[in-house]
Amino acid sequence: MNKGEELYSGKAKTVYRTEDPDAFIMVFRDSLTAFDGEKKAEVSKKGYYNAQISKKLFELLEMNGIETHYREMVTDNEMLVDNIKIILVEVIVRNIAAGSITKKYPFEVGQPLEPPVIVMDYKDDARHDPMLNEDIAEALGLATKEELADVKKTALKIRVIIQWNSPLSADSTPISTL
Amino acid sequence: MNKGEELYSGKAKTVYRTEDPDAFIMVFRDSLTAFDGEKKAEVSKKGYYNAQISKKLFELLEMNGIETHYREMVTDNEMLVDNIKIILVEVIVRNIAAGSITKKYPFEVGQPLEPPVIVMDYKDDARHDPMLNEDIAEALGLATKEELADVKKTALKIRVIIQWNSPLSADSTPISTL
Repeated sequence: MNKGEELYSGKAKTVYRTEDPDAFIMVFRDSLTAFDGEKKAEVSKKGYYNAQISKKLFELLEMNGIETHYREMVTDNEMLVDNIKIILVEVIVRNIAAGSITKKYPFEVGQPLEPPVIVMDYKDDARHDPMLNEDIAEALGLATKEELADVKKTALKIRVIIQWNSPLSADSTPISTL
Repeated sequence: MNKGEELYSGKAKTVYRTEDPDAFIMVFRDSLTAFDGEKKAEVSKKGYYNAQISKKLFELLEMNGIETHYREMVTDNEMLVDNIKIILVEVIVRNIAAGSITKKYPFEVGQPLEPPVIVMDYKDDARHDPMLNEDIAEALGLATKEELADVKKTALKIRVIIQWNSPLSADSTPISTL
């Protein structure tokens, strides 16, 4: 499979068409950004490591019955993926309070969040990814309430898969059912 | 009923204890603020009109079976209310896109929101009332998921009561059941 027309270039990856209309190639670049892309730099091997970590994570998810767009690696930092339409919602599952959530709300840094706190942001760099609620997401036409409930359920399943397979976890055997 | 110790003074109202430990007096002041209290001014009769509008709204809600903390007016701008513990959540029901929501998200000004969009903010001036979702509200201990569902249901009931009783509405007869 070969890279064709460049479709989109984001903060860390560039997406290309291929001979197959149903497949894209994602190139993981060495670019480094912070503050929503305001600060930029290059770090050698960053693309390689990002691609390899993503590969491992997608394989882990597929192994545990979560569908992803991952097909296979083309090179060490190039990934063949399905041409899919994404929901423009970024899903963050917080097990421990840290970072922005402790600045915005009175949580202590390091405070365990049990049950975990799910935050959904609207993926829109120009608007700095504003936080959504389900009414707003639906009114914007991003997803239906049913789709959002499904996304949330999947996020919680992935949380368990990652925790069980973490090197920090006592039991790191892949799980096949949840 | 007489004003005792001053309990709290906010942007527009001051709350006093009374002889009755279960009742407070709220004084509607002539203060005017904007930008979360950054700009301040005094406007003659503002307290009077705010108090009278609040009285009408509380009476309308009570008449339609929604419990409030309202008891009676003490003077034209002083209201006797129950001593209650409030949930620190501000509930905004939007029927039409306008103001902040059109700046934060790609809604057109004037766009009808059908179904209405409910936004819940954490009442905390120092943090500029950050938007909540249900997970965050629960993790902060502000309310349980069940209480939030109840708050949302009540907000939607109040929306209907206010719309049916609006002078702009074709049918402005008070409704007793929903």
